[in-house]
Amino acid sequence: MLAIRLIERKRDGGRIDPGEWRALLGAYVAGHVPDYQMAAFLMAVFLRGLDREETAALTDAMLRSGGALDLHGISAPRIDKHSTGGVGDKVSLVLAPLAASMGIVVPMISGRGLGHTGGTLDKLDAIPGFRSDLSLAAAREQLKRIGCVLLGQSGEIAPVDRKLYALRDATATVEAIPLIAASIMSKKLAEGLTGLVLDVKRGSGSFLTSLERGLELADTMVAIGAAHDCPVVALITAMDRPLGRACGNALEMEEAIHALRGEGPPDLMEVTYALGVEMLLLVGAAANPADARRMLEGSVSSGRALETFGRIIEAQGGDPRVLENPVSLPQADEVEVFRARRNGVVTRIEPRRIGRAIVELGGGRRAIEDAIDPAVGFVIPVKPGDSVTEGEPLASVFARNADGIDRAMAALSEAITIGDAGTLTPLITHRVTADGVTAL
Amino acid sequence: MLAIRLIERKRDGGRIDPGEWRALLGAYVAGHVPDYQMAAFLMAVFLRGLDREETAALTDAMLRSGGALDLHGISAPRIDKHSTGGVGDKVSLVLAPLAASMGIVVPMISGRGLGHTGGTLDKLDAIPGFRSDLSLAAAREQLKRIGCVLLGQSGEIAPVDRKLYALRDATATVEAIPLIAASIMSKKLAEGLTGLVLDVKRGSGSFLTSLERGLELADTMVAIGAAHDCPVVALITAMDRPLGRACGNALEMEEAIHALRGEGPPDLMEVTYALGVEMLLLVGAAANPADARRMLEGSVSSGRALETFGRIIEAQGGDPRVLENPVSLPQADEVEVFRARRNGVVTRIEPRRIGRAIVELGGGRRAIEDAIDPAVGFVIPVKPGDSVTEGEPLASVFARNADGIDRAMAALSEAITIGDAGTLTPLITHRVTADGVTAL
Repeated sequence: MLAIRLIERKRDGGRIDPGEWRALLGAYVAGHVPDYQMAAFLMAVFLRGLDREETAALTDAMLRSGGALDLHGISAPRIDKHSTGGVGDKVSLVLAPLAASMGIVVPMISGRGLGHTGGTLDKLDAIPGFRSDLSLAAAREQLKRIGCVLLGQSGEIAPVDRKLYALRDATATVEAIPLIAASIMSKKLAEGLTGLVLDVKRGSGSFLTSLERGLELADTMVAIGAAHDCPVVALITAMDRPLGRACGNALEMEEAIHALRGEGPPDLMEVTYALGVEMLLLVGAAANPADARRMLEGSVSSGRALETFGRIIEAQGGDPRVLENPVSLPQADEVEVFRARRNGVVTRIEPRRIGRAIVELGGGRRAIEDAIDPAVGFVIPVKPGDSVTEGEPLASVFARNADGIDRAMAALSEAITIGDAGTLTPLITHRVTADGVTAL
Repeated sequence: MLAIRLIERKRDGGRIDPGEWRALLGAYVAGHVPDYQMAAFLMAVFLRGLDREETAALTDAMLRSGGALDLHGISAPRIDKHSTGGVGDKVSLVLAPLAASMGIVVPMISGRGLGHTGGTLDKLDAIPGFRSDLSLAAAREQLKRIGCVLLGQSGEIAPVDRKLYALRDATATVEAIPLIAASIMSKKLAEGLTGLVLDVKRGSGSFLTSLERGLELADTMVAIGAAHDCPVVALITAMDRPLGRACGNALEMEEAIHALRGEGPPDLMEVTYALGVEMLLLVGAAANPADARRMLEGSVSSGRALETFGRIIEAQGGDPRVLENPVSLPQADEVEVFRARRNGVVTRIEPRRIGRAIVELGGGRRAIEDAIDPAVGFVIPVKPGDSVTEGEPLASVFARNADGIDRAMAALSEAITIGDAGTLTPLITHRVTADGVTAL
């Protein structure tokens, strides 16, 4: 394999064969193909695209580049959930223990936040002592015992993905659907899944803002799953406003704990249950969506889901007392209330502006290596369409110091718009499976 | 300037402004923009293209990256000639001294051969003692004194071009017309020219095989010239067979010397005179093409052109006695005659196969750093359309040893086809100026 021949071929719109994908990625990981050749190749892929077979072959080559969770001794169905990311999205924190409490094995590998979107690992890190860097062997043992493990991406899983992602980030080739899909699916397939549910966010707070691109990504990932005998179901959900009320790592962990106690905000529960229904249907544990929904609600109301989360936290070195006493989570020094400046209706709560404000407050990352402050953020109980009166509290702001409060208040002034009329767009709009797209 | 923003913009089909080109290339030369970002950018340029203004701005930025021949004290018109390269193309060796003998200042910076095409510098190196690595100051002094200097590209002239070319070569982004045009023109404009004539080769032995692409390159270079107040005239000439008879460095030098003595093969003289006519018309030294042609022929027949070449060779450290005694050029150890295997008409002499055979014989380069053997090559007196009889000598082969002879004979068997009917395609087919394209 000569890398330049593959660059030429993709540049001219040709196809790369499965064996060539394996050779190219193998040589890249080994350092025999330099970054500059891979960068030119990635730009050619960005502009020329990959067909379904190529995307599946790329995913397979990435998967083979590293180790995998060896789950073949675990007979229970193994389903993970993935979200394309947004603001206030703490669904994984609720859904993983909930599903595990119902006998589904959930080997969840999550990422850290970057830019305006948060990451599940950062939210978990808000729990004192919690460790997400278990070995694959320890993860497997925990899965057998508790049915769920919450891991960070280690060098063992699809190592080429890390190297490729850093290069894509520096060369404006991140936002290519086949590359995004292969990156996500290579890590998910390394978990040894029997099924996967996907939350594809759309709207200004997601990284793919248009419905068209969201559906394309969902469809691509469903196809990759099909090529690897792993059924994938994707829901398209709204990210034109934050999900739930809390935005910020410790605040979102606290909201997730409330959700597992049955006190979660309606939109968060709606998305969590909808994805949970898909998980139960994928494993055949429920006859229909209504039954599945009742089973999920039962596991929350009985306390089994919360209890499972406690076992996971304890197994991974965290202090499970946060579940009873969320004030043991990191707390911000400064808190302030943001109030409505006029009577009217909330017309917009711009999630990207909220996410950027969290980064400005130190609660998110501009670069991969940045340290973050888990305590900062927002709690925004209102939604677009809500009527408000002048002086009414619309949000609470949590910051490190007075300067942070000022920046956060200014950000909310930009993010929250009050007008004369406004509505909430539908939360869950499409369902994508191997059988096609259904508008809900 | 953030390189990634420029990559993104070009990826999405946007334009790069002149100030951005300067900043990007400046940062690249300084090492602040890494190769992998430039590689992604170049692939985006390859696939999205550059418009005329961007191409001129890129050329300008490349030109400004380095020094230039300071020719402002030289009042005579300064015209150079450039060829896109082919097999047997020794026109520069004849035309540069010929034009200088008529009062045109020719500051010619040439390249080395790579792959199947030869390079003027390699042919000059066949002259014992000849040096093409003069300083810009020494080159200027020689130009004032003799009217011609034959230089290699130094680090002083458009240094970013070398770095960019090496990267393009490794990333399959060489064959983008705007990048080719900017690369050539940045070096030519650094010569302080008042005009430029271009020989754009078409056919299987050239690097742009189609007429369409040849015309596009010619038109792009004419436009860059116009943007820099340097009139450019391009001729499209045939490279579906070797030019002249000799192919190989010392053999081509010998043929060029014969040409300056008035004994050159007709096709070589035709191209040389046609480009010389354009040079004389550009400087206003002739009233019309016919007059210009007569003046050129007169300079050859009077011996002035040959004498000028002798002065150039002597000034650059070479032994001018090669002009009287070409056997002092490097000679091959083994010579063999290739004969026609049947009666018929020559239908094809494939120049790319001939060029590759020279590389196989050690007379060309696979990589920039390869050393070459100047003595090897071919002399092929026949042309497509010539009738031949079985056993008639079609070519002479010059090699280092018996193995080389075998390879060369095999290459000729592949390159030369004899059939029942064949014709010679027209040698010079189009003329491109700022006024447009004329079919000849």
